[in-house]
Order: sequence, then C-alpha cells, then structure tokens
Amino acid sequence: MIDICLLGTGGTMPLPERALTSLYIKYNGHGLLIDCGEGTQVQIRKKKLSLHDIDVILFTHFHADHISGLPGLLLSMSKSERTEKVTLVGPPGLEAVVRSLCIVAREMPFDMEFIEIEGNYSRIERLGLKIDAFSVRHSAPCLGYAITLERAGKFDPAKAHELGIPQTMWKTLQNGIPTEYNGNAYIPGDVLGEPRKGIKVTYCTDTRPVDQIIAYARRSDLFICEGMYAEPEMQPKAEKKLHCMFSEAALLAKAAEVNCLWLTHFSPSLREPGQYQSDITALFENTVIPQDLQSVTLAFED
Amino acid sequence: MIDICLLGTGGTMPLPERALTSLYIKYNGHGLLIDCGEGTQVQIRKKKLSLHDIDVILFTHFHADHISGLPGLLLSMSKSERTEKVTLVGPPGLEAVVRSLCIVAREMPFDMEFIEIEGNYSRIERLGLKIDAFSVRHSAPCLGYAITLERAGKFDPAKAHELGIPQTMWKTLQNGIPTEYNGNAYIPGDVLGEPRKGIKVTYCTDTRPVDQIIAYARRSDLFICEGMYAEPEMQPKAEKKLHCMFSEAALLAKAAEVNCLWLTHFSPSLREPGQYQSDITALFENTVIPQDLQSVTLAFED
Repeated sequence: MIDICLLGTGGTMPLPERALTSLYIKYNGHGLLIDCGEGTQVQIRKKKLSLHDIDVILFTHFHADHISGLPGLLLSMSKSERTEKVTLVGPPGLEAVVRSLCIVAREMPFDMEFIEIEGNYSRIERLGLKIDAFSVRHSAPCLGYAITLERAGKFDPAKAHELGIPQTMWKTLQNGIPTEYNGNAYIPGDVLGEPRKGIKVTYCTDTRPVDQIIAYARRSDLFICEGMYAEPEMQPKAEKKLHCMFSEAALLAKAAEVNCLWLTHFSPSLREPGQYQSDITALFENTVIPQDLQSVTLAFED
Repeated sequence: MIDICLLGTGGTMPLPERALTSLYIKYNGHGLLIDCGEGTQVQIRKKKLSLHDIDVILFTHFHADHISGLPGLLLSMSKSERTEKVTLVGPPGLEAVVRSLCIVAREMPFDMEFIEIEGNYSRIERLGLKIDAFSVRHSAPCLGYAITLERAGKFDPAKAHELGIPQTMWKTLQNGIPTEYNGNAYIPGDVLGEPRKGIKVTYCTDTRPVDQIIAYARRSDLFICEGMYAEPEMQPKAEKKLHCMFSEAALLAKAAEVNCLWLTHFSPSLREPGQYQSDITALFENTVIPQDLQSVTLAFED
C-alpha cells in the first residue's frame, strides 16, 4: 500500500492559492519526496505528513521552482531530530547545486548521500521501491521517475509442506530471501507463484512529450504529468519553453495505457485548470485535474 | 506617507498559519523589503503588493528563515519584467551568499548592487529614505535597521517674496535643492523653517536586547522587534540561542520611547502569541502582537 500526495500543482512560481508541484510518497513508514520548490515544507505540514521520515528526495531538475525549498526543508528535518542519512537523487551537478543552496543551512545532524544520474536511464532501489530515472526533454537536464513496488507471487503452503520447509522459514521466503534448512537450500521460487502485478507511479515534469515517457510510464497505476498550459493557443509557447500541454499529457497517458492521469505544474497564467476537464477527458477518460494536496492510496489488486 | 506591511510573524520555519518574518515598506511608488525567508513572495502576492517595484532588500542576517526565499523572489521579479537594478544590503558576505543561493536563479534581466555593512554602523540613503544599519547580537553577524523619512521645515512664502525668489523656484527649494536667480544663490534654509518631525521605523530581529537597539530605535513611530518567546521559562533558551523575549522587547520599546511596538519572529513552539497581550501591555502599553500581513500607514503629524 502506497500513499500519494501531490503537495502542490503550480509551476514557475508559488501563488497564494497554489503551491509548487511536488510529490510525497509514503510507504512502509518512509517518506519519498519528488521535487522541493519554495513552500514544500509548509504543504507537508498542512497535510500532517512527516518531515522527519523523508529518506529519499528525487529531483527532476534544478530550476528554482523544483528545488529552492530544499534548504528550509533540510533545516526543518534537522529540527525534527532526524539523524539518519538522507538520499538525494537528480541530474549531474546535484551535489554542487545542493551544497550551494545550503550555504544558509550548514549545520545538519544527518549526512546526505548524492546520486547523480548519468546517461539516459538508471535504476536505483531504495525503501523497497524500484526507482527508474529517465531523461526527458526540457531546457535543463531533466529526469522523469517511475517508481514501482513489486509484488511477489502467491505463497503456496502445500508446496512448502511437500518440500519439508518448517513454518518458521516461510516468512523469509515470502520476503524473497533464500534460506537453508537441514543442509538444504531453498529459494523463494520454490514456494512462490508467478510475480503478481505491483504498484507503479510515474512522475514527469517539466518536459516535452517524448516517446521515452511512454516507455517508462507504461501501465502505471498513476501517471502524474506536467500540464503547463491547456489553451490550444499556448502550444507554440509550450514548444519554445519545452513544456507539456494538457492534451499532450493525455495522449502520453493513452499511449502508455496508464490507469489514471493527474495533471500538474499549471502555469500561473492558467487561472482555472478545472475548466478544461471535459476537453481532456475526451482525450483520456481517467484524467484528474487536481487541487493542491490531492491524495490517493494505491493498494495491490485483489 | 509610508505604508508598512509585516508579511509574516514566524521565526525559524514557516508554518501553514504563520509565514516567516519580513517587512514590506512602500514609499513613493517604491518597495523596500527587509528579510526574505521561504514564502515571502507568496505573502507579497497575498497582500497584492508589487514584486516589480522592490528596489531595495535589506537583510538582517543569513540564517535560512531570513533569506531562503530570495532566489524565488528574484525570479518572480524577473517575470514581472523588471529591468532596473536591485540594491541588496546586509552583513559582510552578502554577495557570496546571494550568488550561492542564486545557482538556481541565474538569468535575471536586472543587475544587483551589493552593499555589505562593515563595522557596527553605517548610514545609506535610498529612495529618499535614510537607512541606519547597526549591529545587534545574534549567533551570526546581524543588523538592525532604522529607516527615517525626514521632513523639511515649513515653507515660508512671505520670506520667499521678501527675497524676490520667483514662484517657479519655490518647489525646488522646498525639495531641499539650492538654486540661483538673477545671479543670486538661494538655499532651502532661506525659505524653510526648522526641520519637522519625520517618520521613523525600526526593525530588529534576531538579537539579544542590547543597548545599541535603544539608541537607534529612539523615538521611532513604529518599532518592530523580535519576540521569540513569551513564557518566562524560555528565558534561558533565549539567552543561549541569542533571541529576544516578549518582555525584553517591551523594555527596549520603553527605554527607546517609541510610539508603538510590534512583536514578531514568534517561535514555532509559541502557538498563541496573543494570549500574552495583557502581560506585555503591562510593560509597554502600545504593543501589538500582530498577525501575518498586519499593516499600517504612517503619515506626517499635523
């Protein structure tokens, strides 16, 4: 089970009624954050999510609206008495950017681990989640993230009995860890069926609608994608500034066969994103035009 | 006439119901800002003040809650199509700190002028205001600011007639500029009475209550002072962390004979600052415990 909260829905600059886009994923007592613009820590507090428990922060890119809230967030995490390491992931240059911003946040009681994603794709694993980072197309090096919670096959107790595996070891095998008993080695595959469908969330902003997104977002349960502009007349601006239109996000969602699309990163010029609901639903039915703090809990099927 | 808005009242970290302390002063079509923590630009928008018109930004010190909103503010000022220079004032190291923060805000269509205040005191003049910067006592080099709008003496038309100064030159002399007519030089003192009381606003946070504050805040119309804690049992913490208690701010206000005291920079631990109103009024009557966006217009007397 994964809890998802889209902390804000705004792009470029925070507005009184619209915080900057960032995503909080809560899984198994841990927090994972994607992007951290100015005001992100306030949104986390508004939703009563934990600052202390944020173990991983993924950055799409280093434009201010995606990272300028980091020093304040780290300081508030410090004041929550966190001492465990925090992992930061982003495009090359991440550590230099973070260290530069942290000139005003120097004394932290925890270490920072930096993972800079080189090339077009990299998979990392943290908190029991598989995190696929992939390049998208913006005016600065920018990453999309597909986050997957895998689900093992169904445990077969009859098989375990048949193999003489004592019940005390079942949990270990269910958790995917090989084990030994009476000199015999057992692997999870001995007692588990075919892997079952897990949970997948993909997050992409800021970017033009490139094919790579379709590949990595494929069959996501939730696809959160930039919709900077809704009005057809803004298409040239989106192309020039390398942003994504509502309609383009919907076509990506359709091509990637995702279950649900949430738009985000609305331009400050877009006063009422919700007024385009029917236009966008015509292109991809299960589209949500969210408000700040839109949340959902994603659970395994059946 | 000067318009004052205390954009936020919080110290240390922004809270959903309390933005970080900063002050917007509007005078003669110009904006002057003191401090710029995370979220300051949103408060400016909430109050419908101008981002475009901010010509001067004064920093008390470089802790994150006083400066981390700067890159976002500068970017939003850029998007407001500002091209005029912005003057930034603060303790030594200002330019290095600002350049370091602006790693995420690199393309600005205006220049920045940096004024680093060396020593214990410096006077600068900007926008027709006299700005006295003076050292206070905190865990980092920190400045208080006393801002004065002076008021010339009353113009005496009889005197001007007597001296044969043509009416077209009266305005120039009233504005304090010497002039010439028919080979004779005239100075403002020829036609103006004694200087009259102007308007003075003093802003001090974060600091222990040192004597220097009394000297520079003397007879302010408005004295905005840190009140980090209200509870007497927090006194040792205030002393250790070099912050100021409500009661200490009140005693400063009394000693400096100010007209009105506004407290600010409340600790996140202080949930209801207003509950201490009667305690503080007993020490200094004209004390306001403000909410975010507390505003006042200060005008010349009579």
